[in-house]
Amino acid sequence: MVFENQTTILHYFKITGCTSTLALGENINLMLKDAGIPFEYIRHTDDDWPDMQEKLKSQSIFSLTLPALEVDGILMNKTIPIMRYLARMLGQYGGSSEAEWQYLDALADACSDWREDYRKHYYLDDWQIPEDHFTKVTFPILQSFEQALEALGGPFVLGEKITYVDILIYHNLDDDHALTRLQGMPHLTRLVEALEHRPNLKDYLLQVKQEQALDAIAMAKRAAAAKADA
Amino acid sequence: MVFENQTTILHYFKITGCTSTLALGENINLMLKDAGIPFEYIRHTDDDWPDMQEKLKSQSIFSLTLPALEVDGILMNKTIPIMRYLARMLGQYGGSSEAEWQYLDALADACSDWREDYRKHYYLDDWQIPEDHFTKVTFPILQSFEQALEALGGPFVLGEKITYVDILIYHNLDDDHALTRLQGMPHLTRLVEALEHRPNLKDYLLQVKQEQALDAIAMAKRAAAAKADA
Repeated sequence: MVFENQTTILHYFKITGCTSTLALGENINLMLKDAGIPFEYIRHTDDDWPDMQEKLKSQSIFSLTLPALEVDGILMNKTIPIMRYLARMLGQYGGSSEAEWQYLDALADACSDWREDYRKHYYLDDWQIPEDHFTKVTFPILQSFEQALEALGGPFVLGEKITYVDILIYHNLDDDHALTRLQGMPHLTRLVEALEHRPNLKDYLLQVKQEQALDAIAMAKRAAAAKADA
Repeated sequence: MVFENQTTILHYFKITGCTSTLALGENINLMLKDAGIPFEYIRHTDDDWPDMQEKLKSQSIFSLTLPALEVDGILMNKTIPIMRYLARMLGQYGGSSEAEWQYLDALADACSDWREDYRKHYYLDDWQIPEDHFTKVTFPILQSFEQALEALGGPFVLGEKITYVDILIYHNLDDDHALTRLQGMPHLTRLVEALEHRPNLKDYLLQVKQEQALDAIAMAKRAAAAKADA
C-alpha cells in the first residue's frame, strides 16, 4: 500500500480547553486511521507554530494554515485537498468516475459551507450555542445530506463503499454537536453506525466518546461553580 | 475535444443592480470561454429559481445552489468542484501529478477563504467597503499568492500553463475590487496581464471593463443624487 513504507506525520494545532477531536485536523486523523496508514500525530502549540510556519514557507507553501500532512519530508496543507489527495493515491475513498468525483467534491463543498455556519460557536464561552442553531442552521443541512444518502441507498454517500465525504459528514456532525440529534434521519443514523463500526476506528471512537463525556461533566461543573460564585 | 459536440449550459442567478460578472458563476463562465467550449449561459431570476431547484432535486442534487453545469441534460453543481471536473475531463487547467493537483486544490481552498472574507460587502449599500478592508484583509492574502507565483516563476501558479486556480485568483481580484490595487506585486500583475491576453478572453474582458466603468459612473451619480436630496 502507498504510504506504508513512508514516514507520515499529521501536523495540527493543540487547541487547549476542549475535546482533542475539535476542528479540522480530526478529519485527516480519522481517514489515516481508517486506511490503516502508520503515522505520527504532532499537535503544535503557540510556541512551536512559528517554526512550523517557516517549514511550510521553505517548501513554498504560503497559505500558512494547519492541518498539514508530511510524507517523507514533503509537506502539503489544507484539509479537504489533503483528503482528496489521499483518496486518489490510495485508490479508495473516492469515485469510480470523474462524475462521481465531482459529486463527492460538491458534497465536500457543502460540508465546508456547513462548517462556516457552526464554527462561529467555537469562539463563545463554554459553547453556549443559541437554542435555535440546530433547527435554523443544522437541521436544513442535515436534511440535504439525508436526501443524498437516501438517493443512492447508503450507508455511505456512494452506497456500500466509504468515501472521504462520509468521514467529513461524520466529523461535522461531531463538531456541530449533532451526533445525538439524528432522530427522524434514518440514513444519517446508519452512516454514523457504519462509520463507528469500521474495524480501524471502533476502539478509537469509543475512547473519544468517553473523553467527550468527561469533558461535558467538567464543563457542567465549571458552569455550576461559576453560578455559585455569582 | 470533450464537450464540443455536447449541449453545455451554465446556470447561475441573475443578480440585479450590479455588474454582470459579480460572484461565483463568472469563474466557470471564464473557464468555459477560455477553453473554447460552446455553451449557453442562463441567468435565473427569482421567478424561475423554484423550477431550477426541482430540476436539481430530480437529479438527486440536494445542496440547492447555483452555479450548476448541465452537459447533455446531466446536472452538477458547486463552483470549484465543477472547475476541477472540467480540468480533469479536458486534460488542461490541472496538475501533471497528484501532488500538483493537491497543490492547486489547496490554493483553490485559499481562494474560498478569501471569498468568505470579502463577500460580506456584497450586502452593503453601494458597496461601501470599509477603508481598511484592503490593507487588513486583502493585502495579506494577495501577498501569499504573490509568493506562490514567485516560487514557480509565473505567469501562472504552476508556471507557463494556465490552471483553473489562475482563473479563480483573477476573478477573486475582480470581485474584491483589487484588480487595480496590485502595486508592488509584479507576479500578480503578470498573472492578470497574461489572463487578459488569453485569445478567447481578450475581447470579452475588455467589454466587461467597459461595463464596469459605466456601472461605476452610474453608482457615483446615484450617490451624488442621494446626497443632494438629503
